[in-house]
Amino acid sequence: MPAVRQGAAAVVIGNEVLSAKVEEQNGALLIRRLRERGVPLRWMAVVPDEIDAIVEAVAHARSVARYVFTSGGIGPTHDDVTVRAVALALGRRVVRMPEVEAMVREHYGASPPAEALRLADAPHGARLLRQEGVWFPVLECEGVFIIHGVPQLFRIQLEAALAHVEGQPIQLHSLYLGVGEAEIAQVLDRVALENAEVAIGSYPTFDRSLDYKVKLTVEHAQADTVARVVERLRRELPQGSLLREE
Amino acid sequence: MPAVRQGAAAVVIGNEVLSAKVEEQNGALLIRRLRERGVPLRWMAVVPDEIDAIVEAVAHARSVARYVFTSGGIGPTHDDVTVRAVALALGRRVVRMPEVEAMVREHYGASPPAEALRLADAPHGARLLRQEGVWFPVLECEGVFIIHGVPQLFRIQLEAALAHVEGQPIQLHSLYLGVGEAEIAQVLDRVALENAEVAIGSYPTFDRSLDYKVKLTVEHAQADTVARVVERLRRELPQGSLLREE
Repeated sequence: MPAVRQGAAAVVIGNEVLSAKVEEQNGALLIRRLRERGVPLRWMAVVPDEIDAIVEAVAHARSVARYVFTSGGIGPTHDDVTVRAVALALGRRVVRMPEVEAMVREHYGASPPAEALRLADAPHGARLLRQEGVWFPVLECEGVFIIHGVPQLFRIQLEAALAHVEGQPIQLHSLYLGVGEAEIAQVLDRVALENAEVAIGSYPTFDRSLDYKVKLTVEHAQADTVARVVERLRRELPQGSLLREE
Repeated sequence: MPAVRQGAAAVVIGNEVLSAKVEEQNGALLIRRLRERGVPLRWMAVVPDEIDAIVEAVAHARSVARYVFTSGGIGPTHDDVTVRAVALALGRRVVRMPEVEAMVREHYGASPPAEALRLADAPHGARLLRQEGVWFPVLECEGVFIIHGVPQLFRIQLEAALAHVEGQPIQLHSLYLGVGEAEIAQVLDRVALENAEVAIGSYPTFDRSLDYKVKLTVEHAQADTVARVVERLRRELPQGSLLREE
């Protein structure tokens, strides 16, 4: 557990995802949008619609990340337990929010089904983040963003949440090599060990239609740090192994 | 934590997935294949290439599921720490397996780079599961299957692992409704509460080109249990709300 919580973590809630009844799209979108915003994703879990599983995942997510995004488990039915779980993970009560209750009444008409009013429940102290296109707001509490799981809604609500997140664009440099991982492992180990703050990735390919065997990535928030490590790799990698860079 | 560990859990390892440098494919494939094999997936995490994060995820996965599948973090480079992490999670030593060492020498030639021999390391007591199409075997230890993360290899190795997993095909019945979730929540809550062993899912749609508003799913290993719950839903759902079934 890092001393200072950084980056983001995600908890995707839903039996429908775990059982492949719907394809998981929200996690993939979140990963891409966080990267574009320069917010490193530290951890992601997919958990069933069970309160204990959600509480545990949200608590863990908060221990490793500054921001937590939940997807799913929002709605009026028996399997919609995310609000209660997030409240438990934060040690807060669940309260009915008059502002959201008014929205529910506007959406469903003057006398909504009693179950629909569950949509107005939130962890005590939660903030409402409104967005165009979805009548129901994102709830935010202590850096936990509670987002609807239906992909069309998730997509819209995620942007409302991201507007409240501080990111830093990441500098990425890629090197494509004509040799296998075993031949570069010693150099990589050494460079990685001496530059622990830089993310160095090594991705072998097994697709013979590609012109390279391994793609290396070097990532850091600062361009000059990336340049320094790339320069060193150019020097120390086996001669002739570097095909191209981008 | 259930008293008897059932089903499967998955740990997808790799900064490349969390940072969207590669699209996450292995988790999606695993979810689909487990469903086809009738093995419920209980939990899935995506974690960085960090030994503590992997140990924690594997330990949690084992606490909720009988089978655990890991994807990624296998290879000769500095970021390949899955074998060590799984060994730690199981409280076992890492040992070099002579059988795998022989495979490495066959693959890389008589004097492989020292780093390549790391591929022959495994948790003490691990079993080798061989498969056609990939020279490197799946390692299995106490129900944890250690699978390569490169999608082309994962796909092949997963089948070798699944051959050692006991499943039970799940019976699924779907009901398509012309009313919203709030109008059925009361019935659903009651039926779900009285049939806790049956998985009842409720999936609203927000796509107006579809002819229904909510899809209900009823799942259980036994067909007559599914039929009984479906019959009850047909009786108790608001009259005229059921559009069709499949």
